[in-house]
Amino acid sequence: MTAQDRYQFLLDTFKRLNRIDHAITMLSWDQMVMMPSGGVTSRSETLAELTVMRHELLSADSVGDAIAVCEDGLEGFPAGERRSVQEMRNAYQDVNCVPSDLVKAQVMAGSQCEHSWRTQREANDWPGFLVNFKPVVELAREEAQVRQSASQTPTPYDALLDLHCRGDSSELIDQVFGELKAALPSLIDAVIEQQGKSFDSMLAENSNDAKYPVSEQTQLSKALMASLGFDFNAGRLDVSAHPFSTGVAGDQRITTRYDESTFLDALLATAHETGHASYEAGLPEDWLGLPVGDSRNMCIHESQSLLFEKMVTLSPAFLKHLHRLIQQHLSAGKAVSYQALEQNARRVVKSYIRVEADELTYPIHVALRYDIERDLINNQMEAEHIPEAWDAAMQVGLGLSTKDNYRHGCLQDIHWTDGTFGYFPSYTMGAVNSAQLFQSLTKAHPDWASRFETGDITFVRNWLSENIWQHGSHLSSQELMQQATGEGTNAASLLAHLKARYINA
Amino acid sequence: MTAQDRYQFLLDTFKRLNRIDHAITMLSWDQMVMMPSGGVTSRSETLAELTVMRHELLSADSVGDAIAVCEDGLEGFPAGERRSVQEMRNAYQDVNCVPSDLVKAQVMAGSQCEHSWRTQREANDWPGFLVNFKPVVELAREEAQVRQSASQTPTPYDALLDLHCRGDSSELIDQVFGELKAALPSLIDAVIEQQGKSFDSMLAENSNDAKYPVSEQTQLSKALMASLGFDFNAGRLDVSAHPFSTGVAGDQRITTRYDESTFLDALLATAHETGHASYEAGLPEDWLGLPVGDSRNMCIHESQSLLFEKMVTLSPAFLKHLHRLIQQHLSAGKAVSYQALEQNARRVVKSYIRVEADELTYPIHVALRYDIERDLINNQMEAEHIPEAWDAAMQVGLGLSTKDNYRHGCLQDIHWTDGTFGYFPSYTMGAVNSAQLFQSLTKAHPDWASRFETGDITFVRNWLSENIWQHGSHLSSQELMQQATGEGTNAASLLAHLKARYINA
Repeated sequence: MTAQDRYQFLLDTFKRLNRIDHAITMLSWDQMVMMPSGGVTSRSETLAELTVMRHELLSADSVGDAIAVCEDGLEGFPAGERRSVQEMRNAYQDVNCVPSDLVKAQVMAGSQCEHSWRTQREANDWPGFLVNFKPVVELAREEAQVRQSASQTPTPYDALLDLHCRGDSSELIDQVFGELKAALPSLIDAVIEQQGKSFDSMLAENSNDAKYPVSEQTQLSKALMASLGFDFNAGRLDVSAHPFSTGVAGDQRITTRYDESTFLDALLATAHETGHASYEAGLPEDWLGLPVGDSRNMCIHESQSLLFEKMVTLSPAFLKHLHRLIQQHLSAGKAVSYQALEQNARRVVKSYIRVEADELTYPIHVALRYDIERDLINNQMEAEHIPEAWDAAMQVGLGLSTKDNYRHGCLQDIHWTDGTFGYFPSYTMGAVNSAQLFQSLTKAHPDWASRFETGDITFVRNWLSENIWQHGSHLSSQELMQQATGEGTNAASLLAHLKARYINA
Repeated sequence: MTAQDRYQFLLDTFKRLNRIDHAITMLSWDQMVMMPSGGVTSRSETLAELTVMRHELLSADSVGDAIAVCEDGLEGFPAGERRSVQEMRNAYQDVNCVPSDLVKAQVMAGSQCEHSWRTQREANDWPGFLVNFKPVVELAREEAQVRQSASQTPTPYDALLDLHCRGDSSELIDQVFGELKAALPSLIDAVIEQQGKSFDSMLAENSNDAKYPVSEQTQLSKALMASLGFDFNAGRLDVSAHPFSTGVAGDQRITTRYDESTFLDALLATAHETGHASYEAGLPEDWLGLPVGDSRNMCIHESQSLLFEKMVTLSPAFLKHLHRLIQQHLSAGKAVSYQALEQNARRVVKSYIRVEADELTYPIHVALRYDIERDLINNQMEAEHIPEAWDAAMQVGLGLSTKDNYRHGCLQDIHWTDGTFGYFPSYTMGAVNSAQLFQSLTKAHPDWASRFETGDITFVRNWLSENIWQHGSHLSSQELMQQATGEGTNAASLLAHLKARYINA
C-alpha cells in the first residue's frame, strides 16, 4: 500500500464522516427549530446512533494506520495534502486519545450536573451545585492530563484549549487578556460617566406606543442579512430560543429571536449569526468535507461573527443604512430617530450577566471565567473557591459584588456544567481578532465609511474571503492573523477601537 | 447461539436500521419543505450515503443467518415474536433478492426516463418517452421474475405488488376492480345528469371578490386537523409543492398547499394526510422500530387517509361542522353557504387527470392503469400499445378520448417513469377498504352522524385504533379486513356508499 493509496482511503473515510455530520447537523437544527416535543425520544436515539457510527468510523485502527503511513510519506505530498494529513491526525487524535470509559463517565457526570443546574441556578443553590460540579472538574482534569500526554501541550489546560482554540496558547491569552483587564475598568468608568449626561433612550421613548410585530422584524432581519451578503438560495433564517448558526455546504441555517417591544437585539443576533454563516459558506470548495477545509478555530470563527455584528453593523456609518431599513420595514420605525438608534447601539452598562453585556464590558466577564477555568484545570484552584474569585474579579473589573449572589454570578452560564472548559476565551479572542482584522481591512479601503453608509460591504466580504475564509485550516490561527494584519493577536486594535467608538464619538 | 440470542441480535439490528430510517425520513422532509436550493448536492450525497449504510446493515450475511436460525426455532417463540421474525424475513428478502447490478441498472434507466419525462410530458412526446421507457419496463420485468422465484407468487406482477400491497393478490384486485368497472360508468352518467340541474358553484359565486389568505387557510387547516384528532405536540403541518405525510415515532409531519382563490382542495389534502399520519401515530408502541410494528400495506394506509378525507370530512354531517370552522377562520368564509359547500364537496366531473378526479370517477383512472401495468409486467402487453389501451379504457369508463393526447393520457403520471409498478391499485383498494371499514364502524355507532355534526370523531379514532392501527403488521391485510368488517375486501360497500352519497342525497 502506497501513501497515495492510504490517502485516498482517508479521503473516502472523511467524506463519509462528513455526510454523517451532515445528518447530525441538520437533525440537530430540526430539533431546535422545528421538532414538536413528542419527537424527543426517537430523535435522541437517532442522534446517539449517528454519533456512535461517527465514532466507530473515525476510531478504526485502519484510519490511524493510514494516517501514520501518510505521515511517513509526507515528503511525496503536495503542500495542501501535507496539511490535510496533519489536520486528519488532529481530528483522529482528538477523538481517540481519551479512553471511552472516561468519556462515558464525563457524559454521565456532565448530564447530571447540567440537569440539576437548571433548578439550582434559579434557587441560588451553590452548595448543591458544587456536589455535582466537583466530579465534573475532576474528570475534566483527568481528560486534560490524558490529552496533554498525547499532544505535549505546555499545560493541561492548553490541551483542552486545543479542542476549541487550537493554535492560541494560554500564554498568548494571558497576555492579551492581561492588557484588557488593565485598560478596560477605567475606560468603562469614563464612558459611563460621559453617556450618563446625554443618553436618549429609544426604548423609553417608544415603550408605550411602539410595537414591532414579528412579521415586520423578520422582513427587517432578512433585509439586513441581504445587505450583509447572505445568499438566501444557500441558507435560511428561522427562530429559536437561543440564536445560533449551523449548516452544511450550500445550506447555512441561522436563527434569531424576536421581542415585539424592541428590535435591536434580534437585529444584532441576526448580524452576528450572518458572520458565522458567511465564514462557513466561504470555506474552500476544493477541500470540502475534509478537516483541512474546516473553519480554523473558535477564536477565528467568533472574530467573523463579531466583525459583522460589532465592527460593521454597529459602526455609525452602517447604522445610517440600517436606520433606512428600519424606517422601511417597521411601521413603528418612523418614530425611531438616527440619534436614538446610534445611542442605543452604543449603550454601555455594568451588568452581572455576560450574555447581556455590551462590547466594552464583555471582555471583563470572559477574562474572569478564563482565569478561573485555567487555574481549575491546572490544579491551581479548587471549585470551592470559585465564588470568591468571581466576586473579586467582578469588583475589580466592574465594581459589582456577587457575594452570595450565585445566580447572577458563577451559576449563570451553562458552559462548565457539562465539562466544557477551554471555550470561554474564544469570545474575547474573537473580539480582539475582529478589531485587528477590521483595522487592516479598512486601511486597505479608506473609503469604507462612505460605502457602509450605502449598505455596501462587498469589499469586506472579499477581503475576508481572501484573508480568512479561503484558507480553511491550511494556516494556523496565528499565521492567519499574521498574514492578514502583519501581527499576531494582540489587544491594541480592540482598545483603540473601543476608545474611538465610545470616548471620541 | 440460541434462537433467542439471534433474535436479540435481530432486534438490535432492526432498531439501528430504524434510526438510520429516521435520519433519511427527516432529511427527506427537510429537503421537500425547508431546504434552500443550494443544499441539493450535499443533501443528495448524504441521503445516498445513509441509503448505502442502510443497505449494508440489512444485507449482511449475519442478518440472513440469524433469521434462518430463528425460523428453525420458531415453535419456541411467543406468537408476536413469531410474526416478527416472518416480517423480518420479508424485509430482508425484499432488499436482498435482487442482484445489485440489476438495482443499479434500474436506478440509471429510471432517472433517465423520469428526467426526460418532465419535458416530454409538456411536449406530448410519446415516441421520445417510449425510447427511455422500454428499458425501464424490461428491467422491471426482470426484477419481477427474480422476485417471483424468491417468493413464489402466482404471477411476476404479484411479486412487485408485494412491495406495496403485500397480502392483496392480483386475483383479488381483478375481482374488485372488475365490479367497479362494471358498475361505475352508468352511475357516473346518472349523477352528472342529476347534478347538472342544480349545481351551485361556490367558487363561481365568489371568484371575483372572495380571497382566502394563506394565513387564514393555515389556521383553518389546523382547526380541521384538531377536530380530526391530530396531536400538535407530536407533529406539524407545513407547505410543499405536493401534499404528503411522513414522520417518525412521536413526530408526524404532514403538508398541504394553498391556493388563495379557493380553500377546499387544501382542506381535503389536509384531511387526507391527517388520516395517513393518524395511522402511523397509532401503530403499536411495543413493536416500535420493527417490521412487524410497521403499517400493514399501502391498500390499508390509503384506506385510512381516504376514510378521513372522503368518509368523514366530506360526509354531509361533518360538513356542517366544517362549515362552522370555515365561517370562523376565513374572513371571506361568511359568504359561503352550507349548500354551496356541500354541493362543491360532491361535485362529479369527467376529467382526463387522475389527481384532479373526484371519488366517483377516480377508480376508473386507477383500474385502467392497473390493467396496463399488470399486463406489461406479465408480458401480455408491450409498452408501444399503452396509448391505445388507455384511450379504449377512457372511452369505456368516462366517454373521453385520449387519442394522440398523451400529456392528458398515459404521460400524466410520474409513477411508471422510475419503474414503480404495483403501486397504483393501492389508491382504489384503499377507497374500497375505507368504505367497508366505515360501514362497519358506523354500524357499531348508530349515532355517528349526530356526533359528526358537532365535530366529534373520537369514536372513529378509537375504532380504527382497535381494529387497524394497533395491529401493525401482526395480521395480513385480508385478516385485518375480515376481523374488522366480517369479510375480505370487496366492492359492495364502496358502491353502496357512492350511490347513497351521489344519487340518493
